[in-house]
Amino acid sequence: MNSIIDTHAIIESVQIGDNVIIREYAIIRRGAIIGDNVIIHPFVIIEEGVSIGNDVEVFPSAYIGKPPRGVGAMTRPMNFTARIDIGNGCVIGPNAVIYYDVKIGSHTLISDGASIREQSKIGSRCIIGRYVTVNYATIIGNDVKVQDHTWLAGNMEIGDRVFISGGVTTANDNLMGAAGYTPENIVGPTIENGVRIGAGAIILPKVKVEENALIGAGAVVTKDVPAGQTVKGIPAKIKGDYETNGNKK
Amino acid sequence: MNSIIDTHAIIESVQIGDNVIIREYAIIRRGAIIGDNVIIHPFVIIEEGVSIGNDVEVFPSAYIGKPPRGVGAMTRPMNFTARIDIGNGCVIGPNAVIYYDVKIGSHTLISDGASIREQSKIGSRCIIGRYVTVNYATIIGNDVKVQDHTWLAGNMEIGDRVFISGGVTTANDNLMGAAGYTPENIVGPTIENGVRIGAGAIILPKVKVEENALIGAGAVVTKDVPAGQTVKGIPAKIKGDYETNGNKK
Amino acid sequence: MNSIIDTHAIIESVQIGDNVIIREYAIIRRGAIIGDNVIIHPFVIIEEGVSIGNDVEVFPSAYIGKPPRGVGAMTRPMNFTARIDIGNGCVIGPNAVIYYDVKIGSHTLISDGASIREQSKIGSRCIIGRYVTVNYATIIGNDVKVQDHTWLAGNMEIGDRVFISGGVTTANDNLMGAAGYTPENIVGPTIENGVRIGAGAIILPKVKVEENALIGAGAVVTKDVPAGQTVKGIPAKIKGDYETNGNKK
Repeated sequence: MNSIIDTHAIIESVQIGDNVIIREYAIIRRGAIIGDNVIIHPFVIIEEGVSIGNDVEVFPSAYIGKPPRGVGAMTRPMNFTARIDIGNGCVIGPNAVIYYDVKIGSHTLISDGASIREQSKIGSRCIIGRYVTVNYATIIGNDVKVQDHTWLAGNMEIGDRVFISGGVTTANDNLMGAAGYTPENIVGPTIENGVRIGAGAIILPKVKVEENALIGAGAVVTKDVPAGQTVKGIPAKIKGDYETNGNKK
Repeated sequence: MNSIIDTHAIIESVQIGDNVIIREYAIIRRGAIIGDNVIIHPFVIIEEGVSIGNDVEVFPSAYIGKPPRGVGAMTRPMNFTARIDIGNGCVIGPNAVIYYDVKIGSHTLISDGASIREQSKIGSRCIIGRYVTVNYATIIGNDVKVQDHTWLAGNMEIGDRVFISGGVTTANDNLMGAAGYTPENIVGPTIENGVRIGAGAIILPKVKVEENALIGAGAVVTKDVPAGQTVKGIPAKIKGDYETNGNKK
Repeated sequence: MNSIIDTHAIIESVQIGDNVIIREYAIIRRGAIIGDNVIIHPFVIIEEGVSIGNDVEVFPSAYIGKPPRGVGAMTRPMNFTARIDIGNGCVIGPNAVIYYDVKIGSHTLISDGASIREQSKIGSRCIIGRYVTVNYATIIGNDVKVQDHTWLAGNMEIGDRVFISGGVTTANDNLMGAAGYTPENIVGPTIENGVRIGAGAIILPKVKVEENALIGAGAVVTKDVPAGQTVKGIPAKIKGDYETNGNKK
């Protein structure tokens, strides 16, 4: 009812809510579900099996429903369910890519060009920054903020109320490809509730960063960080003198 | 006059110059202004209130005129004017995203996927590299080069003739989200005229890098850098032995 | 034969193989060559002079055939041949940008938003991660894996079986723009066969990393690394105690 659907859009789905706006050249595949008050900008693709909640805005050229697709060189098997759930009130930025088998809570922002791989889950009220890449099977809690360009490795867990600055790199393979893929060997860091990570920090595989710990800008974290502690440097060491962004000023 | 406008383009604007080429599926909204000798590639969107100078080329899927759009989780208020000015002779790369309330001088290159947020200004003869993200209210002078993947934080100032290598990270929030947004607390670094910044360097909030200073590759800059000095290391310290890219060879 | 070409696609080429699927709003220019069993998703552009092998899949909004395009501020001359060859079995991700004068072997994955500049060559069975940017005239061997966000500088050589983690930065200009472009002065690192490079490492211009060497996460490599050695730290030094990802645990 009262929806505005441009004649240049391609609408195969019959499950489109009320007060929806769909702009030119958007493509909504058969079986996709679109809630009420949704705005879909031009050149967006929403594939079959995708469910979009109410009050969601999807900016131009976002691609929701990418199948994982390997080549001969891939080592990890590609298992996925051809479903995506995006909760109420989310905003999906231009050029964002969301793979199949992803679940996103409500009121979360996926910024320009962010790419979220299969089997990942992102909670509610999160901000995933521009060009952040979330790798496969990574679980992110609620109220998490990840700034631009950060790379979240596969098989990684992030709690609630975590703040990750821009340009942060995580890793999940200590052997750097030398031993192929097994779920036991390829494990990213665990980031517990309330952790804050400074700009450009690097966190190595299997490291556990415990609750409310703080990682200084540019630190290389090679071993576990106890709850509430601040670490800095290369390799990162525990410091008691946190003042600014994890670095003494 | 003599313009070539593809029949698949959607042209709502009536202010289009001479000798313009607009390709398939480009969208030019009502009230947008397009100068002479402009080339617009397919899938480009130019929104209302955008003014494009003469001799500009806009590559495929660039999106010029994104409104800032928050979710419940955003802390900073979204104030902006729905205008963009792009000067003569600029080139806008594929997938670039330019938010409303941005002004770009003449003969500046915005490369593939660069994302420029609201209230930012970029001068003339600049090169903004691929996937560079410029955050809100950041002011960049003339003849500045920023290489690929660099992240320029919000509320940051950059002078003229600055060279910023690739993978550089800047920060503007010493408390990493712990205290919400105020314009006084959230302040990026100031980079003065002629500064050169090496690959992968990290520069912390409120730091002032004075004229012609040089920051070594990978340095973490936690305090002000005096004019003409070279700093390196973590945390960055003044060195007299600059030889190559800010690192002694 | 048996091809499925959507009526909304724009097909100027007459050299299209068998069992091809071309989706809505894809654009295939005159003179492009498309092999058998190729899938082209919506909003893809394939320009004149591009040759796509058999069994290739091209995801939405990929742009294959970008001409290099400078502005007044560019220092390097733009020489290129308006050709691209993509071998059999390759996968090109959404929003990937491939410039003219690029050759890609077979069964290579170019991931989401990767951008490959002119005069570069990428071998077979490689994985080029999301938002990796490959600069001009960079030569990459076979069986190379480059993870997300890594920046490969111009005029750089990479051997076979190299593993480069995410967030790695390379540089090719010791003077950071101070002396303009000459092919003798602007030279990236050389990475020999079997080298492994940890997350977030930085490698400076003209450095040679010899066969099977290992670079620790976050290292800043300022001088040559002998074959088989491990280096870590800032500046990187030779260590005999490699355990995990190049960092002692």
